[in-house]
Order: sequence, then C-alpha cells, then structure tokens
Amino acid sequence: MLAEIIAIGSELLTPFRQDTNSLYLTSKLNELGVDVAFKEVVGDNAEHLTSVAEIALRRADIIIFMGGLGPTEDDLTRECVAEALGVRLVRNQDLVAELYKRFASRRTTMTDNNLQQADLIEGAETLPNPLGSAPGQWLETTYDGEKRILMLLPGPPFELERMFAEECLPKLKARLPRTYIATRVLRLAMVGESTADSIAAPVYTKYNDIHTTILAGAGEVQFHLKSSAESELVAQDKVDHLAEELEDALGDRVFSSSGETLEQIVGYYLQMRNATLAVAESCTGGLLAERITSVSGSSRYFVGGAVVYSNELKTMMADVPPSLIQQHGAVSKQVAIALAEGIRKKCKASVGVGITGVAGPTGGTEDKPVGLVYCAVADSRGTDFTENRFPGTRDRIRLYATQRALDMVRRRLI
Amino acid sequence: MLAEIIAIGSELLTPFRQDTNSLYLTSKLNELGVDVAFKEVVGDNAEHLTSVAEIALRRADIIIFMGGLGPTEDDLTRECVAEALGVRLVRNQDLVAELYKRFASRRTTMTDNNLQQADLIEGAETLPNPLGSAPGQWLETTYDGEKRILMLLPGPPFELERMFAEECLPKLKARLPRTYIATRVLRLAMVGESTADSIAAPVYTKYNDIHTTILAGAGEVQFHLKSSAESELVAQDKVDHLAEELEDALGDRVFSSSGETLEQIVGYYLQMRNATLAVAESCTGGLLAERITSVSGSSRYFVGGAVVYSNELKTMMADVPPSLIQQHGAVSKQVAIALAEGIRKKCKASVGVGITGVAGPTGGTEDKPVGLVYCAVADSRGTDFTENRFPGTRDRIRLYATQRALDMVRRRLI
Repeated sequence: MLAEIIAIGSELLTPFRQDTNSLYLTSKLNELGVDVAFKEVVGDNAEHLTSVAEIALRRADIIIFMGGLGPTEDDLTRECVAEALGVRLVRNQDLVAELYKRFASRRTTMTDNNLQQADLIEGAETLPNPLGSAPGQWLETTYDGEKRILMLLPGPPFELERMFAEECLPKLKARLPRTYIATRVLRLAMVGESTADSIAAPVYTKYNDIHTTILAGAGEVQFHLKSSAESELVAQDKVDHLAEELEDALGDRVFSSSGETLEQIVGYYLQMRNATLAVAESCTGGLLAERITSVSGSSRYFVGGAVVYSNELKTMMADVPPSLIQQHGAVSKQVAIALAEGIRKKCKASVGVGITGVAGPTGGTEDKPVGLVYCAVADSRGTDFTENRFPGTRDRIRLYATQRALDMVRRRLI
Repeated sequence: MLAEIIAIGSELLTPFRQDTNSLYLTSKLNELGVDVAFKEVVGDNAEHLTSVAEIALRRADIIIFMGGLGPTEDDLTRECVAEALGVRLVRNQDLVAELYKRFASRRTTMTDNNLQQADLIEGAETLPNPLGSAPGQWLETTYDGEKRILMLLPGPPFELERMFAEECLPKLKARLPRTYIATRVLRLAMVGESTADSIAAPVYTKYNDIHTTILAGAGEVQFHLKSSAESELVAQDKVDHLAEELEDALGDRVFSSSGETLEQIVGYYLQMRNATLAVAESCTGGLLAERITSVSGSSRYFVGGAVVYSNELKTMMADVPPSLIQQHGAVSKQVAIALAEGIRKKCKASVGVGITGVAGPTGGTEDKPVGLVYCAVADSRGTDFTENRFPGTRDRIRLYATQRALDMVRRRLI
C-alpha cells in the first residue's frame, strides 16, 4: 500500500510557507503500516492540479489532497479531482441546507460562491468538519482497474487533524489488512551519532524484522524503532525487547526510552526526588529557563533563575565575587561554579546550575574562542563542571549549552 | 519560466524530516523572476525517481534535483535523471582524479563505490562542491522540443546553498531575461490581520504592478512587497514608494520596514538612546530574555533579568512586596508593575519589563483564565501596563506575551 500526499495552495510555493500537515499524516499512515511514496506541492492552478491528480491516480493506492476546499475562486480541488477522475460534481442538498443554517446562525447572508462547498465528487461521501465550513470528502473508486482511496481534507492543521483522526482513520483501519505497528524512541544526550551507532548497530542489525532509524540533532541522537505484526502484543514485544537490549548497551547515555524530551525527564527526576532547581545563565540568555518552563507544571520544581548578562548582575543575583570575575574572567570554570553555587544558595533550591561562555559570532578571543562554554551543577554533595567547545552558529551553541547543562542535572539526579 | 524542485531521500518521507532547501531555492528563483510551480519529495527508489524526473521534464523549464548524489547504493539521482532523458552516464576522468586526490590527502583508501560520483549525465557540466565530496551537475538540453535547464545539487543545506549561489545563480542570470526584482517587508506587532489589511488594502490595490502578500503569525503581521522591472532602480523605486505609503497609513503599528525582527528593532532603539534593559518574567519563563539575547551584540544594552517563577523569587530578585502578592495575587497588574519597577531599580537599568500571567494549559481559574497576561514597562518617566487575553497553546501564549512586552518597550522608545 503506497500513499501520496498532495498539498494545494500557491502560498505553499513561496519562500515563507511550508506544508507541515504531511508530517502528521505520514506519522498516522505509518502507524497503519502504510508508507508514503510521494509528497507534492502544487499551486491554485486548475491545469497543474488536474495533472497532479491524474499522476497520483496512476501511481498511489491512497491519495490525500489537502487544501483548496473553501468558497473562493482559488479553491479548485473538488473540480480538478473530479476532472482527473472523469466524473461529475453533484451538489448535495443536505450540505446546502447546512451551509444556509450555518450562515443564518451567524446572522450573515451567504454569498453564492459558498455553495461550491456543497459539491461532492460523484460517488464520494462527506467528511464532516466541525471546526470549519468546508467539509471533506472520502471516495473509494477504481482507476485503470486499480483500487484507489481518495481523501479531500481542509488545509488548516487543526481542521485537518481532527477530520483525519475522527473520520478517516476508522475508515482506513476497516479497509487495511490488520497490521499492528509498534514504535519506541530512545533519546541520547551529548553523544556523537557515529559513537552511538557504533554501539547500537551490532544490536539492532540482529533484528531484520525491526526497522531502526537514527536521527541526530544538536547534542541529541535518537533511535526510532518500528515493528509490525498481526497482533498488537507481538509487535510491541518486539520493539520493547530491542529497546531494552539497546538501553543495556548504551547505558546512561539514554535519557528517555519513550520519547520524552530532556527537560521533561529532568522535571520527572526533580519531582521524584522532591527537589527544586534554580539556574543562573549568561551566554544562553534565558534559553535554559525557557526550556525548563516550556513543560507544563514546571512551577512544582523550578523556582526560577537569573539571566546574568552583565558582570554586576552575576554578583548581585548569584553572589559571584567581583574579584573572581576579575581574576579569571566572566567566561571561566570558576565563574560557572560560583554561579551554580550562588544561585542555589540564594534561591534556596536543591540544585543550582551555572552557564557562562561565548555564543558568538563576535566576542571570541584566542584564549576564549566562540563556542567555549562552561557549565556547572551544584547540590548538597558538591559541584561538578564541564568545559565544552561547541561548533556552529550562535543559536546552535546556545542550544548545545542548555542540552549539556540539562544532561548534567539529569546525571546528578539518576 | 516555471521551475520544479525535487527533493530526493527516503528520510524526507518520514514524519521526522522535512525538506527546507526548497524555501531557500524558491527565494533565490523568485528574485530572478522565476516562479516555482511544483515541489516534490520522492524516496531513494529508482522507478519512482525516474518517473518523477520524466514528469518534471514534461512540465517545467527549470528543474532542480536535490540529494542522492553520494557514493552509496541509495544515491540514484544521476542514473535516474539520465534514464529519464534517455542518455548515458559518462565517467569523467578529471573527477576521478580529484576523488583519488581527496582520499589520498585524508590518508584513506577510496572504495570503488565512490567512483559513481565521477559519473556525469551526457552533456552535463560539473558544479564544484568545495564543502563536500559529491559534485553537482548543470545540464541544458531539449526535451520534446522544449528547452530545459536541469541542476543536480547535493542535499546538505550548506553545500547546496554555496553551490547554488556561486555556480548556478550566475549561469541562470546569464540565461534569463534581464528582470530585476525588488522586495520590501513591513512588519507590524500586535495588530490583527484583518485590521491591518483593511487599512493597507486600499493603498496596495492601487498598484497592479506590485505584488503584495500578507502573512500573519502570533502577534505579528507582515506585508511582503515585490516588484519587477528592467532596471534595478525602477524596481526598487516602486516598492520603496509603496512601502512609504503603507507606513504612512499604518503608522506606528509598523515596527520594521526592512525585515528586522522586533527584538532587533528594540535593540537598535536602546543603543540609539544609550539605554539599557532589564526584565523580570514569570509565565514566559525566560523566553523574553532568550529572544532579546538571540541578537548578537545584545550585551551592549541588555544587562540581564530574572525568571521569577516562585513568589519568593519575585520578592528576592525584583523587590516585589510579599503583601502586594498576597493582596492581588501573583497574576495581577500590581505585581506586573512592581516587577518592572523592581527589576529596573535593582539592575540600575534605564528600562524595566515585568510579565506575569497564566500560560496554561493548567492553572487557570474563572477570574484568572489561561491566557490572561499582564505586561508592564517602567522607565524614568513612569510605568505603563497592559492586560491581555491571549488565545492558543502554552507556547503561543508565551510567544504573544513576549511580543506584547517587546512592542511596549519599542513604543516607549520611539
């Protein structure tokens, strides 16, 4: 079973907008054992859209069209798909009545162009859209003797996701062979892709029936495991077994084995230990606090922190002695340690974090180049620090630094 | 002139990876007056890739293939494009020699599979790749009697961008009709899309020869203006003239007319006024400081700030009287004002910002629902505050709140 996903809209062919719906749909289709073979973006152009629909009908079993279902002249999906199939559009009187009702309830007059939203491709059934005015369409047909399933879905992500989850998924499940897909995601912090893979490959290559993908980002490597079977239990057992073996091999480099983010995991550990956290950050400028507080409920363990860009603030907010800054410089292990210990004490937190470094692109020297970052973590048992040299842009260096700091907190709490 | 952009790679058909190169290429092609008509993603599958290439050859004048140029079995772009064109691959001995040299300089032996990187499509010329081992290819040909320009570019963004800018752009410019495209971007903070458009539309609709696009995000609306002419001066004059008229109509809602971000503009104003900034944020958890410090050189005007999640920290770091919190609650205009005034005084900054609110999804009450956010700005002339009710998710509410706070600072400094 191959799927093709077609995003429709001239704005998706500009440098400013990108289709993201296809990522959601791909994830849901993969769970059903369906691979996406083609993704395409086409503008609001009848000739182009009709030819794209014809091409898709020739090569894909499941075809999802997104967007172009509204009331304007630019909304061409219905008529172009009908044209590609060589069938008519039929105005559905129930949908017409609903449109009138919808406009009446808002006390506005409906203009005639809205009526095209009641046009169904011959043989299609309506997919209700509780969050918008344009209904979707579901069509099972044959094209050149091949079975085809077509879906016409609205473009706005919240309308599309609800319609797909509530209307399309149950229909697809009923029509596809019963395959259960189980997945697991292992996430590792501050380890290189090649190092992680050299440890993991001898393990996962033993299992031909589990698909393993490795993904790497700034300070993070992920292993995505996927298996399919005719029973849910068997599929889950397979990935769980491999996940366990991989965790044994990779050790405490793995911070999460069910997909949680590093900031979520740090939050769990802090709550488990009934501990609180305070941070004092210089070069990361608030990014560490922002990541920690992006987790809902973080107020239970995060007391707060200081963004100490100036030397005066390092002293005032985290009690770093001015003599220490003078002696070693603001970017030094001594100041990182003093920041961690100072903010911990000042905020009466169980754990304190200090970060200082050169995020660049300016401000680097031979001694203290761009990318040099000191991170320190203090608790009742003492203080650890790391000296790091991170590559890349300002954004990337800042992200690496917060990743290192969070990983140090995690290791302290294990 | 229509272009088609084809991204090649099975990883781009998973839920985890997305082509972003096409946004860069679209922007560069648009500057040359070329529209992108189709974008496609296809996996590492010879049959699929060949058919996608054939379809593109039938419908697009300029075709850009990205990825699939490496040394592995999965790298099929060269052979599939040749197959679609009905021509041979020719091994280029200069490229072979370069590959051997490259490997020798790294003191590693070259495996045979690397040699396919020296295969050129018959009639194509090499595009050097100083940042990677796989060279690109440029081919001008005819297909069914129509002129076609094909480019085969590497997938990694830094390799692709450099190759396109240095090799492809000059070639394209020499072959395309001399059209100059000029663009301007007006950015507006904290105004609704429909309000902004109702003011702007009567202005921009007067100019048929300037293309105006409106884009809206959280707390921001952008007008993208684009005009083309045979002379650079004329094209630039046209957009500049419209930009000025729009600025007059939209007034101080426009924070930038050359595309700068709100945090950059606030930085400019602060430097111009020789002023400094300090922030005390609760519900935004560091996001405001993070945005301000994402601008390189922000240490010249940003002294720092406090992330005051707990009530104790509001008092300790920003001198908010505990009685004030007790009387009005942590989420109140009084506490926002006290945060702004307190952090300003404590940090000896010219301007102080305070934010407190309910970011959700939990923690809302009937009186103080999710999305209620108070922002305050204090300077030597006094303190302003706003009461806001922002819609959406936790992330979106936090983004809105920082946008409001930055816009308040901007208005104070105008």
